[in-house]
Amino acid sequence: MTSTTTSRKFNFSAGPAVLPESVIEQAQQDIWDLDGTGIGLLEHSHRGKAITEVFDETDALCREVGNIPDDFEILYLQGGASLQFSMIPMAFLNADRQADYINTGSWTKKAIQEAQRFGQANVIWDGKEDNYASLPSLDSLAWNDAATYSYYCSNNTIYGTRWKRTPSSPTPLISDMSSEMYSRPIHWESHDMVYAGAQKNLGPAGVTLVAIRRNLLEQASTDLPSMLRYDIHADKGSRYNTPPVFAIYFLGKVFDWIRTNGGLQGIEAMNERKATCIYNAIDDSGGFYTGHAAVEDRSRMNITFRCPSEELEAAFIKQASDHDMENLKGHRSVGGLRASIYNAFPESGCRQLAEFMGEFARTHG
Amino acid sequence: MTSTTTSRKFNFSAGPAVLPESVIEQAQQDIWDLDGTGIGLLEHSHRGKAITEVFDETDALCREVGNIPDDFEILYLQGGASLQFSMIPMAFLNADRQADYINTGSWTKKAIQEAQRFGQANVIWDGKEDNYASLPSLDSLAWNDAATYSYYCSNNTIYGTRWKRTPSSPTPLISDMSSEMYSRPIHWESHDMVYAGAQKNLGPAGVTLVAIRRNLLEQASTDLPSMLRYDIHADKGSRYNTPPVFAIYFLGKVFDWIRTNGGLQGIEAMNERKATCIYNAIDDSGGFYTGHAAVEDRSRMNITFRCPSEELEAAFIKQASDHDMENLKGHRSVGGLRASIYNAFPESGCRQLAEFMGEFARTHG
Repeated sequence: MTSTTTSRKFNFSAGPAVLPESVIEQAQQDIWDLDGTGIGLLEHSHRGKAITEVFDETDALCREVGNIPDDFEILYLQGGASLQFSMIPMAFLNADRQADYINTGSWTKKAIQEAQRFGQANVIWDGKEDNYASLPSLDSLAWNDAATYSYYCSNNTIYGTRWKRTPSSPTPLISDMSSEMYSRPIHWESHDMVYAGAQKNLGPAGVTLVAIRRNLLEQASTDLPSMLRYDIHADKGSRYNTPPVFAIYFLGKVFDWIRTNGGLQGIEAMNERKATCIYNAIDDSGGFYTGHAAVEDRSRMNITFRCPSEELEAAFIKQASDHDMENLKGHRSVGGLRASIYNAFPESGCRQLAEFMGEFARTHG
Repeated sequence: MTSTTTSRKFNFSAGPAVLPESVIEQAQQDIWDLDGTGIGLLEHSHRGKAITEVFDETDALCREVGNIPDDFEILYLQGGASLQFSMIPMAFLNADRQADYINTGSWTKKAIQEAQRFGQANVIWDGKEDNYASLPSLDSLAWNDAATYSYYCSNNTIYGTRWKRTPSSPTPLISDMSSEMYSRPIHWESHDMVYAGAQKNLGPAGVTLVAIRRNLLEQASTDLPSMLRYDIHADKGSRYNTPPVFAIYFLGKVFDWIRTNGGLQGIEAMNERKATCIYNAIDDSGGFYTGHAAVEDRSRMNITFRCPSEELEAAFIKQASDHDMENLKGHRSVGGLRASIYNAFPESGCRQLAEFMGEFARTHG
């Protein structure tokens, strides 16, 4: 039989990543028998009453928890952020149009490459000089009034940077929030579309959450394959074809979990405490640890840092694993260590890591 | 805590549809803690050791159970069959090319519409005259040698027809097997690509299984968005970006379940028995029930039939539901009743439905 008594490790994975245990437990029940229907979550028709209720609940909670304005449509798509890299320019760019992109690392670079297939993608800022350790100051950005849209990534998983304040562009602003959506309140007035692959902060892999302002949606090209048209997905309530039901269900339960944990304000305060605890361990190590991201641009989701040598980094990862702290290896673009501490990552795990970091520095410093 | 003792109903849903109970039970365990790793299935990095093992196992079982030849690549994509409707012509058609399509109902019609955006889609046979109740005889098909590929749907969920024998075309043959893949052996020599949205016979919604011959793959256009390129998905082992891990895991467990149930030969024999039992109830009803599909083209997955009146059909659905047999309403394109009895649908449920049909006909005939 199913058991939730097995002890689970602290999972610092950058994504797919840790999810709320109460939601996993609920999913264990519901894949056998959803709400006493005698049919499991995975086996219900996506057009039947039970799944319609699941979708309605996910929608309502998504809007309530995120404080999403009424003039935004909520879509649940497939293909991850990577398909959005193409769907966005297919919808809004063409050979006669241009868009502004801010390049803050690997994911924006991919978005720019895909956009260039369809029109002119202006890279109005590029952080490659310091290996994407910092973000631009808001008033330094030279937006183009002629752009069809502007694009940035609010949190850069690989480099551990995040936009503390939301940029404001003269043209519709689109944000890839894959690694931080619903980790703090969203400044909706500044945005016209935000999206996130679910598998970092929102749920399992296999669904992309999109919130798009109706004004922008109406400008999307309709001369496209049906599955790549935002308007069709909006008109059909994300059920033009069979959607990824399990992942959408899971999102709804995660939104509910956020609500019961104080909403985005409560979650943001918790995330601040969690990140501060680990950043303090870096800053108080007397130079043993070096953070990759510029202090003012530090992510609250992904904490990137180095030890004095690669040998020590390997020892760190090994010993952390011996203490049930897993997946602390950094991305190859930055090297070193990375602690991803998304919403569902427990505060106790951050404290345990910080203590371990202190001890490791004292032993090897 | 989680329980698998709740009684489950007989679920005749056309998709998403019934799944093997032993696999659901395994998934209940693994989403909490995958193989004793201390991390749940949904929370592991898709590039880590644990999920690499899951993928390798799914791949190996997919190939073994399906008897897939070595020169086929296996891909796990997102977007369902509906995205394949576009990805196929984007890869293989253009303004100077043509492809042959056989229109056997709603899903092929959609595939044709999407293909027409990219090139010339020849509809070489169309079943609309008898509302798609029958399929063409194999020797009546006028294939075009100039086509880049030929396309058909092996089982038509809505109308309840299936190709008993595989067509053979002079050009690469592509088959949408969404509602019957792995319900019987596949004649690989005749095909160059087959695909299936998982949510009917293979697993939960959110993944599309594609098997494509390397010769055909090499002809695919590379002048496309990355996420729409078969070659990129093949080169990256379906992990160009984060794949739908849960659904891919589930496929592997279903393939294993098929293997332990006699492989595709065993499953086919069981499906024959299951379908025969219900078709006999139609044919032995003295005309009370009328099958929609032509007898020689009857599907083993989706059984479509009518009662003498719509009132009786409504009563049938109601009374069946009172006996824990759910989702027997037919699709609006055909009306009446539909019993979908995919691989995981239990034989006992088919016998119970057949008995109920006999009793209902005697009472109301």
